[in-house]
Amino acid sequence: MKNYNIIKNPSISDWETLSERATSEAQEIEQRVIDVLKKVKGEGNKALKEYTHQFDGVSLGNFQVSQEEMEEAKTQIPEELKEAIQQAYQNIEKFHQSQKTAIIKIETQKGITCWRKNIPIQKVGFYIPGGTAPLFSTVLMLGVPAQIADCPEVILCSPPNKEGKIHPAILFTANLVGVSKIFKVGGGQAIAAMGYGTETIPQVYKIFGPGNQYVTAAKMLLAKEGLAIDMPAGPSEVLVLADETANPAFVASDLLSQAEHGVDSQVVLVTDSESFIQKTLAQVETQLAALPRAEIARQSLENSRFLVFDSLGQGMNFSNFYAPEHLIIASKDYESLAEKVTQAGSVFLGNYSPESVGDYASGTNHTLPTNGYAQAFSGVSLDSFYKKVTFQHLTQQGLKGIAKTVETMAAAEGLEAHKNAVKIRRS
Amino acid sequence: MKNYNIIKNPSISDWETLSERATSEAQEIEQRVIDVLKKVKGEGNKALKEYTHQFDGVSLGNFQVSQEEMEEAKTQIPEELKEAIQQAYQNIEKFHQSQKTAIIKIETQKGITCWRKNIPIQKVGFYIPGGTAPLFSTVLMLGVPAQIADCPEVILCSPPNKEGKIHPAILFTANLVGVSKIFKVGGGQAIAAMGYGTETIPQVYKIFGPGNQYVTAAKMLLAKEGLAIDMPAGPSEVLVLADETANPAFVASDLLSQAEHGVDSQVVLVTDSESFIQKTLAQVETQLAALPRAEIARQSLENSRFLVFDSLGQGMNFSNFYAPEHLIIASKDYESLAEKVTQAGSVFLGNYSPESVGDYASGTNHTLPTNGYAQAFSGVSLDSFYKKVTFQHLTQQGLKGIAKTVETMAAAEGLEAHKNAVKIRRS
Repeated sequence: MKNYNIIKNPSISDWETLSERATSEAQEIEQRVIDVLKKVKGEGNKALKEYTHQFDGVSLGNFQVSQEEMEEAKTQIPEELKEAIQQAYQNIEKFHQSQKTAIIKIETQKGITCWRKNIPIQKVGFYIPGGTAPLFSTVLMLGVPAQIADCPEVILCSPPNKEGKIHPAILFTANLVGVSKIFKVGGGQAIAAMGYGTETIPQVYKIFGPGNQYVTAAKMLLAKEGLAIDMPAGPSEVLVLADETANPAFVASDLLSQAEHGVDSQVVLVTDSESFIQKTLAQVETQLAALPRAEIARQSLENSRFLVFDSLGQGMNFSNFYAPEHLIIASKDYESLAEKVTQAGSVFLGNYSPESVGDYASGTNHTLPTNGYAQAFSGVSLDSFYKKVTFQHLTQQGLKGIAKTVETMAAAEGLEAHKNAVKIRRS
Repeated sequence: MKNYNIIKNPSISDWETLSERATSEAQEIEQRVIDVLKKVKGEGNKALKEYTHQFDGVSLGNFQVSQEEMEEAKTQIPEELKEAIQQAYQNIEKFHQSQKTAIIKIETQKGITCWRKNIPIQKVGFYIPGGTAPLFSTVLMLGVPAQIADCPEVILCSPPNKEGKIHPAILFTANLVGVSKIFKVGGGQAIAAMGYGTETIPQVYKIFGPGNQYVTAAKMLLAKEGLAIDMPAGPSEVLVLADETANPAFVASDLLSQAEHGVDSQVVLVTDSESFIQKTLAQVETQLAALPRAEIARQSLENSRFLVFDSLGQGMNFSNFYAPEHLIIASKDYESLAEKVTQAGSVFLGNYSPESVGDYASGTNHTLPTNGYAQAFSGVSLDSFYKKVTFQHLTQQGLKGIAKTVETMAAAEGLEAHKNAVKIRRS
């Protein structure tokens, strides 16, 4: 068995270090991405063509996926996968539909009525990474709530492969969720294109989706200019809080399903039993042997942490401090422990709720805050596709009833014209 | 009468230009703020002391406002102002309280239960500018929803005056909304202190509040590092959509109440009647004469725009394109026009709903997206102080019911360990 990082009863002063995530050479990447943003902003499609040739190794005459390609994609997906995607679609649709809220008009004071209305963001863009793993599940996670919110324009960018194609599962799913236009552009240049617009690619008001460090840097730089993005991003992570009532084989499978994402994925096991760690690690070794991505998972596990606390309650305190993207509570006491969660992206309760089900099909969203961002950010939800606009209407009586209050406050802030706007209406 | 910028039936190709806001020398400011962030991160309180001496002209031994200063503040506020603040508090409380949502548990599929829970952000910080106009109203707008959300730690930074004091109205209001700690620090250094923490000032997870260009730049730079902020910010603005059924004196008072904010405030009047513009401008001249901040308002008005369209419907289209922070619809048809709003921060309907009432006391929030950010951002609301955390629980049967779907999707994405985490639980 390899050397794993097992720590008993870490003192609170070590929690900061134990919560550190793998960080990247952000500075250097940022400068390169700044150049990409500038070039795309200035040269539009011409820059996209150059970058696509350079990074994706293909020369494209037209970035937009054609109707024929969309039709072709449908024939390339096995029936079983289509059914699976449909089932996932239904569950995600049902859960996100339940997030709709009615307009509630409140009379805060006689004659003063205030309310909020959810209005869809008019133009949104999704980035879907390419490569060997076609993340069609992310198309569902972004596309379903956008569809429920009724965003009028939804575009998608994803890098082409060497043949100039996007994976058919991505195209099939994009069609299912009603994406308006799909473009074969990847990397920071895709984010730039959606942020600034080009001759072909429409500018959007909010960009969603995961990506490598270049994509992330591009999103953060555009966010600094005022563009909305889903959330800041980092490598995926899971914290499993387990006691002797959990099943070591199940927990091992959860750790591995996170670890296979990439060598920078972070896996943390928190428990009140050292022997449970040993049993779980034995299971990890057994299951690792059968995995195609074993080497990635093994490297990731070597960077991970296995913590033993006196009680699961203390372990929960650590989890809240760590603020994991995914938190699995594998204990018969999951109900009372769940009540104590203050910082996490998405929480999986009990022995039969692996993270995988939330990643794909249970209904919850898998676009979640990593890297401790769960301290202040929420995962993607229906809300992510709305602006909540406030409205108010005052009757003449309503205005009179609040006039003195507003006039007094405006005068105290030295804003005489604010005061006048009320005064002139009550006389 | 001065020369105002009156434009008849601008063609759509001009809308972009007509929607431009005053921009600042962001680059130069940014570099200076980067230095401030670095210094505060590295030197903590020592850097704060130096900057406070340099920018606020006062040497402080202790940044935190004492209990005596809090008590003293109460005695320095006129009773009338206390009552006004209390009245505003009640309305803001009532409206934001109505934004609470219950937990809805959804069985997306037999044996699979998913829900969201609103969990307060554990540490939030407010920035309140100093200067002649003490923005205690902003303390209400940020503090009331934080109080309803039950955020455990709420701190506030505001620059001290030359006597080392913060305006008593700010202290009084901060006490009312239950702010935990108040610090006499201003500018980019205050944002840095809250973002990184110092020996005295706790690090927070989300920073709210308005400020000058240095404050804004500091917030955006920290946001690029992953810190949550309320929203990007720019100068305040109003668009008034009015027809002959509006009252020119009322509309003039609304334009002026926006214009008095600062020379970079933007005021846009959109109407279907040129004579209405003339009548309104005549009223503007009359009312300007009596204003203490007339010079600021006049300069701001000279940069503003007065647009005549064939119909108010077309004017509404322009307003949606412009995406104003505040939209006043001063027309008897306000109901049908309000239905057409797609992009605005907060909307004021009819002849007796001046922006002032929303700025202070009607109940809606006044922290709103400027500079076209209403395209994708919402104003501050109760939601701004929560993370929405998803939870899920599957029974063994629930897991079996979704197993095939998850396994098929995981395999298609090439994530074998994700598949295993389900497979191992169903056997």
